[in-house]
Amino acid sequence: MAKSTHNSLLITIFFVITVISISSPFSFASQPFKFTRAPRFPKKLSHQTPPLQQQQQQYRYDTRYFSQRLDHFSFADHPSFSQRYLINTEHWVGPNRLGPIFLYCGNEGDIEWFADNTGFVWELAPTFGAMVLFPEHRYYGESVPYGSQEEAYKNATTLSYLTAEQALADFAVLITDLKRNLSAEACPVVLFGGSYGGMLAAWMRLKYPHIAIGALASSAPILQFEDIVPQETFYNIVSNDFKRESTSCFNAIKESWGELISVGLKENGLIELTKTFRLCGVLKKTDDLADWLDSAYSYLAMVDYPYPSEFMMPLPGYPIREVCKKIDSGPESISILERIFQGVSVYYNYTGKVDCFELDDDPHGLDGWNWQACTEMVMPMSSDRDASMFPTYDYNYSSFEEECWRDFKVIPRPQWITTQFGGHDIKSVLKLFGSNIIFSNGLLDPWSGGSVLQNVSETIVALVTEEGAHHIDLRPSTSEDPDWLKEQRATEIKLIEGWLNSYYQRKKATFNM
Amino acid sequence: MAKSTHNSLLITIFFVITVISISSPFSFASQPFKFTRAPRFPKKLSHQTPPLQQQQQQYRYDTRYFSQRLDHFSFADHPSFSQRYLINTEHWVGPNRLGPIFLYCGNEGDIEWFADNTGFVWELAPTFGAMVLFPEHRYYGESVPYGSQEEAYKNATTLSYLTAEQALADFAVLITDLKRNLSAEACPVVLFGGSYGGMLAAWMRLKYPHIAIGALASSAPILQFEDIVPQETFYNIVSNDFKRESTSCFNAIKESWGELISVGLKENGLIELTKTFRLCGVLKKTDDLADWLDSAYSYLAMVDYPYPSEFMMPLPGYPIREVCKKIDSGPESISILERIFQGVSVYYNYTGKVDCFELDDDPHGLDGWNWQACTEMVMPMSSDRDASMFPTYDYNYSSFEEECWRDFKVIPRPQWITTQFGGHDIKSVLKLFGSNIIFSNGLLDPWSGGSVLQNVSETIVALVTEEGAHHIDLRPSTSEDPDWLKEQRATEIKLIEGWLNSYYQRKKATFNM
Repeated sequence: MAKSTHNSLLITIFFVITVISISSPFSFASQPFKFTRAPRFPKKLSHQTPPLQQQQQQYRYDTRYFSQRLDHFSFADHPSFSQRYLINTEHWVGPNRLGPIFLYCGNEGDIEWFADNTGFVWELAPTFGAMVLFPEHRYYGESVPYGSQEEAYKNATTLSYLTAEQALADFAVLITDLKRNLSAEACPVVLFGGSYGGMLAAWMRLKYPHIAIGALASSAPILQFEDIVPQETFYNIVSNDFKRESTSCFNAIKESWGELISVGLKENGLIELTKTFRLCGVLKKTDDLADWLDSAYSYLAMVDYPYPSEFMMPLPGYPIREVCKKIDSGPESISILERIFQGVSVYYNYTGKVDCFELDDDPHGLDGWNWQACTEMVMPMSSDRDASMFPTYDYNYSSFEEECWRDFKVIPRPQWITTQFGGHDIKSVLKLFGSNIIFSNGLLDPWSGGSVLQNVSETIVALVTEEGAHHIDLRPSTSEDPDWLKEQRATEIKLIEGWLNSYYQRKKATFNM
Repeated sequence: MAKSTHNSLLITIFFVITVISISSPFSFASQPFKFTRAPRFPKKLSHQTPPLQQQQQQYRYDTRYFSQRLDHFSFADHPSFSQRYLINTEHWVGPNRLGPIFLYCGNEGDIEWFADNTGFVWELAPTFGAMVLFPEHRYYGESVPYGSQEEAYKNATTLSYLTAEQALADFAVLITDLKRNLSAEACPVVLFGGSYGGMLAAWMRLKYPHIAIGALASSAPILQFEDIVPQETFYNIVSNDFKRESTSCFNAIKESWGELISVGLKENGLIELTKTFRLCGVLKKTDDLADWLDSAYSYLAMVDYPYPSEFMMPLPGYPIREVCKKIDSGPESISILERIFQGVSVYYNYTGKVDCFELDDDPHGLDGWNWQACTEMVMPMSSDRDASMFPTYDYNYSSFEEECWRDFKVIPRPQWITTQFGGHDIKSVLKLFGSNIIFSNGLLDPWSGGSVLQNVSETIVALVTEEGAHHIDLRPSTSEDPDWLKEQRATEIKLIEGWLNSYYQRKKATFNM
């Protein structure tokens, strides 16, 4: 406790110095490390080693393209764009037998990466005789408008159609057209999605019930908006994931921020930090390193899977345990920052092949998710003084808005998502409305705090696992899957089977009318 | 039968002559009278006599304005516009007692006209302690973007944000903001709407269940799209309304089109028609007169109320009966067209004050509804050879598309409404999804054929009256209301009461959790 107070004081001092040294009021907003912008969902990292499946593609699919309107909600004359989608029909029993269509709602990245990491859908398809579809989200992967990534991301005007509503409409138009072409109008569609893709799956079922009969929304933080859940939830869960492995590890990390700042402020401090953390280039400011560490901890919490995985990085099973072992195990002579380095090396360099580290995954970069976070996906996040191992931070919307204006020349609409999709009082709203949604969450996942963790109704249900991390249920099955995971997936399959059977019965009843 | 065949032949001859005489292929599309464009919902007519309530406003309300985004679904930088809304809080029991909010979804016209003609909502409010809100639909009345009607309607670019989805989002944003300002977030909203407004009410409940707990969608033809209902439905119902009063009347009208064409083709025929129909200016083409007659018959079917009314025009009770009396009663010496004139005079000149008639309600004018019909609201309509008293016509989408391109430089999206809002197989889709919608319809109303006439589920119900016309239930009560109408309204009140009670119980349950 004493240490913690000490660190807070140090951070406070740091802030004061920073504010004094920089005249622009904007800079203050970006100082408390990276907490002014919402944390990201897992994504394919630029320096990520090519996953195995790229050497030998894990799942078979055809790649196709579909022409989409840039703006579904107006009749303004825009150029259309080409949406990529992956399709596999080899197990599909076809329209005459009303073969189901399993559609994964592509999220913020290359659709092939999501396809490769969503083994559950591929493994399920043969049993159900289902077609598998992975449409890509607009503005990501190959599905960019205006002819090129560069043009599409040029400014706020070209980016302005990168929204969740437009993406959902893309899915709706694509599936409607595809079904018509295959005379498969009566074939039921089941939606799948993880993370932001899970949000899209849930929203799609709610907004387009005539297009999809149900949705498995895994790790979908649809409540991480406005004041629906406490702003501290995310970082508290990350912190708890570390604390449950080792209190001393939690404390060491909590203490390390002050130490980081303190070293950074010394003469040649940035060079010292560069050496300690084996960075390839000289550190320009302490913030960048703090971002890099924050990323590691947050992502580790998301991928704290019980078996070795390569989702974000090659990692051992329960990677946080391994990180904490390193942080806890160094001899007393080793500095706290050196131990932190050893710890995060489990994340950044588990294979041991990295000689030096590039801090290149710029969380403030002008990429698609940052645009989305600066427009619709405004998720307020704070870091709690006591329960969090991260520097204390109170969410400040004004600063956030200024940052978004600086980066994109756009003003966020923080209340739009709840106006469009709801979220407040969800139990009361959806108890007598909607059906067939599974919200699955693992409590190790920091995003679980913003998701639906209690049954809403008989058919809008929450599946919660104590030991699960970020949409582990959607991942390919492994020989090391624990029983709770097998059971979770079995429940999901049973529910999906129920939706399909109920659909077939309704079809039959209508047909016989 | 012989006569009917004869007329069809005449019409065919007319078409052939027309096609030969005009070189543009577009013109052919617009020849078979006006059936290439969907019939309109009732609207305030430009030459309508000022209704009583304008001399002494029938209902009390404040007029307010709310700044809205022009495009809710993108972040493009557009000028905002001012949405007008009418509000009355004098009976509202306020936020502490969770006073309900009754919101009428403004449709394609001046909101004051709808407010004046929707007495049901005003009469209900005191009983429920409800606030009454009448937001205006964008691009109508005073709620036009770009500063003026002229600018807003200038071209396809300025008109491109006149869509149902944008209008629904307007309502959602307005009500969210209003509730927040009044600390009334927990107050339940009940939606009302008639005609296109009824479609909006039903869609709003389906798309924004978190914003409204239920909807009374009166005379809402949400199924009048694509191939969901037979294309002949509308004109068949109009025709049946006349046939049920008198077969000879039905036959006379059916016969009159051929006569009209025949006279029109004679030398000085247009002048003869001008005289017969007491037109103020010389008739330019027979089509215009046919449009005028079609309008009268179609509107008469919509407003075939059992008591005198002034919704579209001052009219007697069961006006079609009166029209048919005139058509049937003339002595043999009077020509069929003279009898038709006497008949439609009941509609166009019941007060007897009109000296000559202007054919000025141009159904092809560049007004808002025509834009909507040429973009989203593509409602295919045909006229059946036998069951319809109108000239036979087969819907032709290509011609329609060409006409829309000619008029607005816009290409319709005929499958968009069903993609966005559904409609196909509605019973199967909504049986286990959604709740609290009343689809009320009177079977005299030609729009009833495109609405929901069977219960979908326990809470999505159809109220059908044999003798009702276009959203008669929403009209002010009168001393002449028949029992079936009183019963219909009583059922609606009971259902709305049930929604509210269920909401209050859920609120209580959540609160006690």
